[in-house]
Amino acid sequence: MNKALKFAVLGGGSWATAIVKMLCDNQEEVVWYMRNTDAIGFIKIQKHNPNYLTSVTFNTEKLHLTDDINEAVSKADILIFAIPSAFLHTELQKLTSSIKEKIVFSAIKGIVPETGLIVGEHFHETYDIPFKNIGVITGPCHAEEVAMERLSYLTIACADTSKAKFVAKNLSSSYIKTKVTKDIIGTEYAAMLKNIYAIAAGIAHGLGYGDNFQSVLMSNAIREMKRYTKSIHKIDRNINDSAYLGDLLVTGYSTFSRNRMFGNMIGKGYTVKSAQMEMNMVAEGYYAAKSAYELKGKFEKKVKTPIINAVYKVLYEGKNAKKVFLALTDKLD
Amino acid sequence: MNKALKFAVLGGGSWATAIVKMLCDNQEEVVWYMRNTDAIGFIKIQKHNPNYLTSVTFNTEKLHLTDDINEAVSKADILIFAIPSAFLHTELQKLTSSIKEKIVFSAIKGIVPETGLIVGEHFHETYDIPFKNIGVITGPCHAEEVAMERLSYLTIACADTSKAKFVAKNLSSSYIKTKVTKDIIGTEYAAMLKNIYAIAAGIAHGLGYGDNFQSVLMSNAIREMKRYTKSIHKIDRNINDSAYLGDLLVTGYSTFSRNRMFGNMIGKGYTVKSAQMEMNMVAEGYYAAKSAYELKGKFEKKVKTPIINAVYKVLYEGKNAKKVFLALTDKLD
Repeated sequence: MNKALKFAVLGGGSWATAIVKMLCDNQEEVVWYMRNTDAIGFIKIQKHNPNYLTSVTFNTEKLHLTDDINEAVSKADILIFAIPSAFLHTELQKLTSSIKEKIVFSAIKGIVPETGLIVGEHFHETYDIPFKNIGVITGPCHAEEVAMERLSYLTIACADTSKAKFVAKNLSSSYIKTKVTKDIIGTEYAAMLKNIYAIAAGIAHGLGYGDNFQSVLMSNAIREMKRYTKSIHKIDRNINDSAYLGDLLVTGYSTFSRNRMFGNMIGKGYTVKSAQMEMNMVAEGYYAAKSAYELKGKFEKKVKTPIINAVYKVLYEGKNAKKVFLALTDKLD
Repeated sequence: MNKALKFAVLGGGSWATAIVKMLCDNQEEVVWYMRNTDAIGFIKIQKHNPNYLTSVTFNTEKLHLTDDINEAVSKADILIFAIPSAFLHTELQKLTSSIKEKIVFSAIKGIVPETGLIVGEHFHETYDIPFKNIGVITGPCHAEEVAMERLSYLTIACADTSKAKFVAKNLSSSYIKTKVTKDIIGTEYAAMLKNIYAIAAGIAHGLGYGDNFQSVLMSNAIREMKRYTKSIHKIDRNINDSAYLGDLLVTGYSTFSRNRMFGNMIGKGYTVKSAQMEMNMVAEGYYAAKSAYELKGKFEKKVKTPIINAVYKVLYEGKNAKKVFLALTDKLD
């Protein structure tokens, strides 16, 4: 890989901020696009993001900040998208020139609601980017711990291993270890499915189930994830690797996970609408549940997904969470 | 199985108390042995254990309480041992007659320090009990949640499936679901190994590692457990079943786990001795680490166990926890 390839990070949230921090440890300049012009002005003066990971101080001489997505894209070779999947489509509409020649890495966990596709597929289908130029950056990783420089492990997936290695090298540091894989489909679906399981964990908690049940739920969830990802893309994959099981655990056991919080409110009796209004956002697992449920209907072979089904029934069919989960408990072991 | 077979539970702690509660939901009489004569007197009058799971009320007409282990053994056909492994040998010394004809189930997680054997093997080797009459009761299950009647799943292992089913049936209730397996060796070793991993999780936490690392550690631990149990006993086993992965998670993520707490103190700088004195007990994983480490030296094929090795080095070779775990982080992925 050409060492002069330049990175742009697209997004202004906590995960985007964490990735910019990681890149700044290895790059002389990082292009950073965010919509929020005020935040850009703030970062230039105060040297930290006013809204996310505020403890992270940047060497602003290294940052090329812009609120123009076209400028960001034109300045860089490798685009790392860290925009919530619900806003990705709208953001990409602003592009005025082709990104076909770019290398695109997704740090987004979820489904693009407008197309029902995972992010890699969305770029491939909508922007004609070949799969060898599409990659995924996945955890297990809370951005907050990157801010604190607590040791974290990332998995970088790309069909073209040299590109995966290049991105991995540029994210690595004393507190970030990386590994590479070719399993772009599996890692991306795993990252999406885990949000559904985090909602399930939240619903169970809200309904009063305890830690014993939570561990059984997670043990069933990883087996379900294995069956699901195998149906989508059969490849030599150890589902207990950090990118799959680790990512499930860091989310499923986190009380800060927005997906888990959303599920918890549902379990406590909020309607889907009122939980979303109360949270002032839509948890990514909400879209993921619909996409995952509908997609599995198209699988050649039927795959057993009792947890996805239960979450779908509660979120989209208005079924009573208590009854649905009582039925679910008989399908777990 | 003869439905008139009678159960005795041996032990007075929280797990023994929980098992007596489960059995009372299905049996007319349960024999309950504990050393503590005062506690027996208390239970007879107050209808609950004064020291453990005090919220659980017993129908004392169903209980045959005794502080004489020989009386308990003579009255029952199926003996369920729930005595901490460190005291098992001493307790069994009190036996005056053979227990060769009994069915023995172990609800103990750990190694008998005097023989270095897991409990099932200890009964087989020391008391001549055939393996078809030896079983294991395993979680994931915090006794405290059984007391609250929170849904929990148990796995009952026995080479003789009819016996496993009989015990499973007598533990089942509206809040206890059971499954049976023939993998007595794997479930018992998993239950023991998870305590070592809980110590590792505690050490990591004490050293300041965060949730991202914890999920990577657990993801590596389950892969290590798979390799280890496969080396000991090759059998068709899904390491992600509740009895293995679920049990690891409920312990590894529990802040109440004594093994995790012990590890945490080590990570914070206590010596092994001072941590044990402070806790006023020896965590089961302490013995398990030694046994597991020494046993693997006898395996035909070498097996990679970086986490067990790290815990062993800290606990038994007096190595610096910070340095050992820094080296460990390079062996995980």
